[in-house]
Amino acid sequence: MSGNTLGTLFTVTNFGESHGPAIGCVIDGCPPGMALTEADIQLELDRRRPGTSRHVTQRQEPDQVEILSGVFEGVTTGTPIALLIRNTDQRSKDYGNIVETFRPGHADYTYWQKYGVRDHRGGGRSSARLTAPTVAAGAVAKKWLREKFGIETRGYMGALGEIPIPFVDWSHVPENPFFAPNADVVPELEAYMDSLRRDGDSVGARIEVVASGVPVGLGEPLYDRLDADIAHAMMGINAVKGVEIGAGFASVAQRGSQHGDEMTPEGFATNNAGGILGGISSGQDITVSLAIKPTSSIRTPRHSIDKAGASATVETFGRHDPCVGIRATPIAEALLALVLMDHALRHRAQCGDVVVGTPKIAAHAPGK
Amino acid sequence: MSGNTLGTLFTVTNFGESHGPAIGCVIDGCPPGMALTEADIQLELDRRRPGTSRHVTQRQEPDQVEILSGVFEGVTTGTPIALLIRNTDQRSKDYGNIVETFRPGHADYTYWQKYGVRDHRGGGRSSARLTAPTVAAGAVAKKWLREKFGIETRGYMGALGEIPIPFVDWSHVPENPFFAPNADVVPELEAYMDSLRRDGDSVGARIEVVASGVPVGLGEPLYDRLDADIAHAMMGINAVKGVEIGAGFASVAQRGSQHGDEMTPEGFATNNAGGILGGISSGQDITVSLAIKPTSSIRTPRHSIDKAGASATVETFGRHDPCVGIRATPIAEALLALVLMDHALRHRAQCGDVVVGTPKIAAHAPGK
Amino acid sequence: MSGNTLGTLFTVTNFGESHGPAIGCVIDGCPPGMALTEADIQLELDRRRPGTSRHVTQRQEPDQVEILSGVFEGVTTGTPIALLIRNTDQRSKDYGNIVETFRPGHADYTYWQKYGVRDHRGGGRSSARLTAPTVAAGAVAKKWLREKFGIETRGYMGALGEIPIPFVDWSHVPENPFFAPNADVVPELEAYMDSLRRDGDSVGARIEVVASGVPVGLGEPLYDRLDADIAHAMMGINAVKGVEIGAGFASVAQRGSQHGDEMTPEGFATNNAGGILGGISSGQDITVSLAIKPTSSIRTPRHSIDKAGASATVETFGRHDPCVGIRATPIAEALLALVLMDHALRHRAQCGDVVVGTPKIAAHAPGK
Amino acid sequence: MSGNTLGTLFTVTNFGESHGPAIGCVIDGCPPGMALTEADIQLELDRRRPGTSRHVTQRQEPDQVEILSGVFEGVTTGTPIALLIRNTDQRSKDYGNIVETFRPGHADYTYWQKYGVRDHRGGGRSSARLTAPTVAAGAVAKKWLREKFGIETRGYMGALGEIPIPFVDWSHVPENPFFAPNADVVPELEAYMDSLRRDGDSVGARIEVVASGVPVGLGEPLYDRLDADIAHAMMGINAVKGVEIGAGFASVAQRGSQHGDEMTPEGFATNNAGGILGGISSGQDITVSLAIKPTSSIRTPRHSIDKAGASATVETFGRHDPCVGIRATPIAEALLALVLMDHALRHRAQCGDVVVGTPKIAAHAPGK
Repeated sequence: MSGNTLGTLFTVTNFGESHGPAIGCVIDGCPPGMALTEADIQLELDRRRPGTSRHVTQRQEPDQVEILSGVFEGVTTGTPIALLIRNTDQRSKDYGNIVETFRPGHADYTYWQKYGVRDHRGGGRSSARLTAPTVAAGAVAKKWLREKFGIETRGYMGALGEIPIPFVDWSHVPENPFFAPNADVVPELEAYMDSLRRDGDSVGARIEVVASGVPVGLGEPLYDRLDADIAHAMMGINAVKGVEIGAGFASVAQRGSQHGDEMTPEGFATNNAGGILGGISSGQDITVSLAIKPTSSIRTPRHSIDKAGASATVETFGRHDPCVGIRATPIAEALLALVLMDHALRHRAQCGDVVVGTPKIAAHAPGK
Repeated sequence: MSGNTLGTLFTVTNFGESHGPAIGCVIDGCPPGMALTEADIQLELDRRRPGTSRHVTQRQEPDQVEILSGVFEGVTTGTPIALLIRNTDQRSKDYGNIVETFRPGHADYTYWQKYGVRDHRGGGRSSARLTAPTVAAGAVAKKWLREKFGIETRGYMGALGEIPIPFVDWSHVPENPFFAPNADVVPELEAYMDSLRRDGDSVGARIEVVASGVPVGLGEPLYDRLDADIAHAMMGINAVKGVEIGAGFASVAQRGSQHGDEMTPEGFATNNAGGILGGISSGQDITVSLAIKPTSSIRTPRHSIDKAGASATVETFGRHDPCVGIRATPIAEALLALVLMDHALRHRAQCGDVVVGTPKIAAHAPGK
Repeated sequence: MSGNTLGTLFTVTNFGESHGPAIGCVIDGCPPGMALTEADIQLELDRRRPGTSRHVTQRQEPDQVEILSGVFEGVTTGTPIALLIRNTDQRSKDYGNIVETFRPGHADYTYWQKYGVRDHRGGGRSSARLTAPTVAAGAVAKKWLREKFGIETRGYMGALGEIPIPFVDWSHVPENPFFAPNADVVPELEAYMDSLRRDGDSVGARIEVVASGVPVGLGEPLYDRLDADIAHAMMGINAVKGVEIGAGFASVAQRGSQHGDEMTPEGFATNNAGGILGGISSGQDITVSLAIKPTSSIRTPRHSIDKAGASATVETFGRHDPCVGIRATPIAEALLALVLMDHALRHRAQCGDVVVGTPKIAAHAPGK
Repeated sequence: MSGNTLGTLFTVTNFGESHGPAIGCVIDGCPPGMALTEADIQLELDRRRPGTSRHVTQRQEPDQVEILSGVFEGVTTGTPIALLIRNTDQRSKDYGNIVETFRPGHADYTYWQKYGVRDHRGGGRSSARLTAPTVAAGAVAKKWLREKFGIETRGYMGALGEIPIPFVDWSHVPENPFFAPNADVVPELEAYMDSLRRDGDSVGARIEVVASGVPVGLGEPLYDRLDADIAHAMMGINAVKGVEIGAGFASVAQRGSQHGDEMTPEGFATNNAGGILGGISSGQDITVSLAIKPTSSIRTPRHSIDKAGASATVETFGRHDPCVGIRATPIAEALLALVLMDHALRHRAQCGDVVVGTPKIAAHAPGK
């Protein structure tokens, strides 16, 4: 297979191009008997949808999902769940200027070199639009994890460019277009985005994702550790350049006496491990951080080459987010849910069903 | 499968426990016709072997590899290559004190919760010793990549705890036990390690890995991007808590006009992408950074619990590196080679053989 | 994954239920650069379509395929090819009588036991209708195999119930609804089918499939031999109860001196092996035979039970073929093409591109 | 991967050549907590071992298995179980005459064409010796299936060449070298084998395998049906040319009113389905038949070619069974157990643990 399937037991096979007839996915391995409607999925799709604030792409696309199979009388049947999203807003004229040249920081060059042919319209297969089917599949995983284990998978923006966003409370996250867990910082973020837009430039972001309520025991150590599979899923999101679990790069300068989370009969004392020890979930919150690079398509002219290898100047017009990281939160949540779902099924294949509440010690109260 | 196989087409299936009869792996998918001897593999195993300096575990184990299959008259036949390393130094008495308690920061607790049974001797399956078969398999991949493409996969230590190690030259790397690319800093590193040992403590490290000579086009975008698979492999190494590609977390604060690597007829002007665009290799150097947490087994007494959930104090005696990161360099190189090898085969399955020298523009001269 | 994906490198993920909104598949791994239109696929779909003669189900369904992705300006791009077929004729009323009882010989009982829920309309997921996406995917494989190697994958009916159909010529196959390679026997077959319909009964069939032009070297011995993968694919067709390669069950009574195909500088003297030796193609024609059981849905009343385990009588009304084998020929051809395609890609991953014309000796002129 | 792994969740990765240092396998996915010793495995290996009667290869090899990993204090730990069998009897001189020529009916030619290099000693990788690791892995699966579900996987010889062997009783099977379920026919079989040996010829065989006690619900319909995976495993055995489930090729001439097994509150009335409906186990006995071709290595001189394509005469000396089918029974049993084991784990991944005794109706009393 050419890499378009995520997961081992709960698999998501993603298809489509930004400006082709449709995008979508096939979920294979969903347990039977779970209530599922299009509304359950639409909810998550709407969270990542472009056009929801002035800070994101103004592409007007309803991104309406249709369940084609695998659900009968509102209940999953255990057969593949195919999800379809028609592309309705296919203004390909905006992209005419990138047919012959390669945008710096973009996949234009590598797709062309790899395949010898590429659908250049809107980035084709390399478009961030292809995260929509992932989010749709993640909605199914989220629902199962919530109903089966009480697992919640949530995320927020931890930094926009050089502006750190201190965590205040989860309740703020859905109330601003940045997924910022902090209402006070929002005006500063808005002003920052407006200035970037004026400059024709873009910036990166840092996203934090947390899964709570995870039972002990998920993960297949060596090589498919839970952290390894999370890293794979997260680094696979467009524009991600770094992934951390728990203390992440801060571990480099930590001492062993500081990093190793002590245990007491009441639970773990700290969570430097980010909820994963030896590749297996420990029952603590799983904490993941992502580095998102700045949007590559910017209005500032840049040096590049054309297909013949000659010098060219590239300037991108059309609809683009000054920070792709703004829409990354629901995508990262979906991927964390998909990885946990897959490992929950892998666990029960080998070790039998996960007993909710197995852990003999309580988890450390999450610090963030 | 329970996660003990790495790769899709060039697969490595790893087996063994730290103090069982043997460890090893089976490589499936190696192309036929490559000269291969045990010496080719031993060379890499010796680089990661404990007991080679006073700064690493004094376990005296020759780690001698035997090729059991897949090679006939010194040449690979295309059939599975099984590699066997007998465990000879099985002093399990040192580990008696961890049978009933869980070491903070260790996989003791999670293995016990997951499987209900575990081989506690020397960490059993969760021991860093199990990276040896990975290194052995990596030696086979390295040889093929070198002979087929001229790809070199090299690594070095970028920081030991809070001490940064500025890159000077590759020639220094093999000449000190830290894999430091800088001779001047070595005395400081040695003194630091000695002080840690006196304190009964440990520290983390930062490792840098670079692949050069990589052809354009390797990677299966969405979901098995080259960067995603590198992140999976690297985060799967014991003690790794973070992975970066190219600019990594520095991308968060970068502007798009700064991050996106400009192209000229002579090559890329910078390499913030770390050699990967849209999940596909660009022909530039692939640059990866890893955060390694401090060794969990330290002589400092720590709070923990026993199997009954009661309070306990854990102190680890026996042979342990004050910095597991010291031996991580050859391991990370091996994994980078394994991922590239796998993607080279995946590429030629779908797109036909990689043409060496395909890229029409030269790669940016690597900055590090 | 729950088994709805066929293949390793050229994968087909199948979705849909007989009376849901749509059926279809996602092909992942198709090489880029091949011309492909909906007409290429429709051609094969029309060959298996019900309603094309009075001997097959009178379901009136155009089975019109839509390419949703993976093709740009008429050429494959190397990205997933999603194929969609809307279900238009969803007369579920005919199936009302099987909601509470289990039809003998049908999957009703096992689906219900496995999943605890099932889409009973028209057999749901277990319907032979789900072979349509397989045939559609097979059309893509057939085209690539033909253009790349000159491989032709063809089939015919070898027996209808107790009536053997001697092979006369391939030219007869498309000219009768039975795929019989023999025009003379057609009137007898038609009379036989009419009598079955009058009796409210059904009968089995024997199908022969042949691939010619296959290069030497396809197949991954132990365990994914070419013959093993063919057997998997063929036994996976609804109603197939037996698979033979080459001499098949006749080998039991053969002597070694008779079975082993002798070789001469001009080619093989016989083809008892069916074109596969040690799991690898030999360059001879690959010959496969299938046993298809009689249609289970018949008008004759039969003993069964209901969901409560009580006795029940089941009689099936509605549209059913008196011989499901009649439509099996294009399905078997498609599966043989899919397996060959997959192994062609697997071969070139490990051994480099197949050289057409490699074989140093000519293949035995096929006897059938 | 190059096809040397069987299974999806309970995987067996096989390695080795007939005359290399060792053969063996790695089992990944075995549930933790099962008692397992080398004696459990040796028992099955001894059943397939050559040299146990005058009718099979006189190769004197103890085939002693060593467990290298995955078992601690006599119990499986959930980590990979590596099994090693050293090759001790490596008389490669007998095979000198096949280095330059290709034996008719053998894999010599196809391996050489595929890989361009091959280990010719004793057939190398294509030797039936490589079924030993499969049998060893099967012993582990058999034990789990027996202890978990009470499933028994048994086989017998149904025909030796043209001599049918009517089933009398399972008790006869272990008491003769043919695995014949019938003591009366044994003298005739022995005389027949002696005459073949005198003629320097060989013959085929028919093997029957039965699994009883199988719960309803195993199998992943479309494409990894239980019957499809059984067919894959069986056709992957050296020398197998045909596979049947239940009525098999006899279904061709059956009527639907005869083939479809009626159900009553007391169970199924017949078992034409062979225990599988719609690709899912029905709770009845699973019945499988195999056609084994005659041994290709015979003393009768045969026409062939050499590597240069010139005419050659091949005569095989050395140790060979006049009927490879004689040792096929334990191999086929092992593979049936491996497939059932894999599907049991796949089932509980998606649908939760199999409830033993689920079926609401009793299975049809097996006829054979």
